[in-house]
Amino acid sequence: MSSDPKLQETRVSSSEVLRGDFLHVFRDTVKLPDGTPASREFIVHPGAVMVIPLIESEDGTVRVLMERQFRYPVGKVMIEFPAGKLDKGEAPLSCAQRELREETGYTATHWARVGLLHPGISYSTEFIEIWFARGLSAGESQLDAGEFLEVFSATPQEIFDGCRSGWITDGKTLAGALWLQNVLSGAWPLEWQSPDTNDKEAP
Amino acid sequence: MSSDPKLQETRVSSSEVLRGDFLHVFRDTVKLPDGTPASREFIVHPGAVMVIPLIESEDGTVRVLMERQFRYPVGKVMIEFPAGKLDKGEAPLSCAQRELREETGYTATHWARVGLLHPGISYSTEFIEIWFARGLSAGESQLDAGEFLEVFSATPQEIFDGCRSGWITDGKTLAGALWLQNVLSGAWPLEWQSPDTNDKEAP
Repeated sequence: MSSDPKLQETRVSSSEVLRGDFLHVFRDTVKLPDGTPASREFIVHPGAVMVIPLIESEDGTVRVLMERQFRYPVGKVMIEFPAGKLDKGEAPLSCAQRELREETGYTATHWARVGLLHPGISYSTEFIEIWFARGLSAGESQLDAGEFLEVFSATPQEIFDGCRSGWITDGKTLAGALWLQNVLSGAWPLEWQSPDTNDKEAP
Repeated sequence: MSSDPKLQETRVSSSEVLRGDFLHVFRDTVKLPDGTPASREFIVHPGAVMVIPLIESEDGTVRVLMERQFRYPVGKVMIEFPAGKLDKGEAPLSCAQRELREETGYTATHWARVGLLHPGISYSTEFIEIWFARGLSAGESQLDAGEFLEVFSATPQEIFDGCRSGWITDGKTLAGALWLQNVLSGAWPLEWQSPDTNDKEAP
């Protein structure tokens, strides 16, 4: 799929144009499919993980952990699934476990990787791995210095209604809601793994 | 929701750190909720529109127009709903009509705005308005110089299967698939408008 000569662009040269405190921007010269040159500016990002944490009651009902966090570029408190950037060399599952624990205080016994999303394909290399977590136990959150967020839980219906109404507009969370809807309906079954016990069975 | 003193960050100062050919980056100093200062780097983006174009057959089946386009930052041909940036001062519906016509050649008689998504809330001001289009008529596409993409149609089931399998990983397209699924199931009915005739009824 990626070696399509009618569409593919080829790098000619690359230069770093901004190494900021947070953003790392490159400008590459590329050759378009017809051979003409063009400029491509983009952010180099280490990648990230998003977690959809399911809180299951004994009566079979499910609630989902979410966060409220002020996001300066959009100037609003946003409703999001927990997420965070990969540390250098960190495995995605380790990152998912760490971010869930740090941001919400929760640990989970069972994890399922469901897919990948690319949030900004026209100007960022960022990818976000999507994971589900279940078997949650509450604990103390350990927010980074300067990190302010609130944790709450919502029913799946509140989340879907919020996607429709505009309460939720975060792209990764909308994509996660597609997964949540299809997992809970049974259309997209998950393969759970239990990383701490090497038990691959669901609980 | 956005005036929450426990979460809100306030701008102290702002400076432009990159005015590239394409990317426009600012670094602001902000005051965190506890009063300490922090730095925020982000891209200022004009906003964009995404269109989910429905091709309805007389027998009631639906296909959806999509695009294949090489996206240099992720180094792959990506499967996407048609989308494009707002020109300065352009109304979102006008942008949606223009991008659909330029990229695919199609015009549509009926349009419905369904919501907003923010693709990269930690480092971009970008928003994407989500629109559905129906009553499509084929024509000649008018790609911008240097723009290379292929148009095809897919069944809704192919799209949902592709979201699950990883054929589709573009974030805006995954979010659009959430809308597509709920619109086609009847859960999220649309309010169609017919901009060229001022007829607000569905066809």
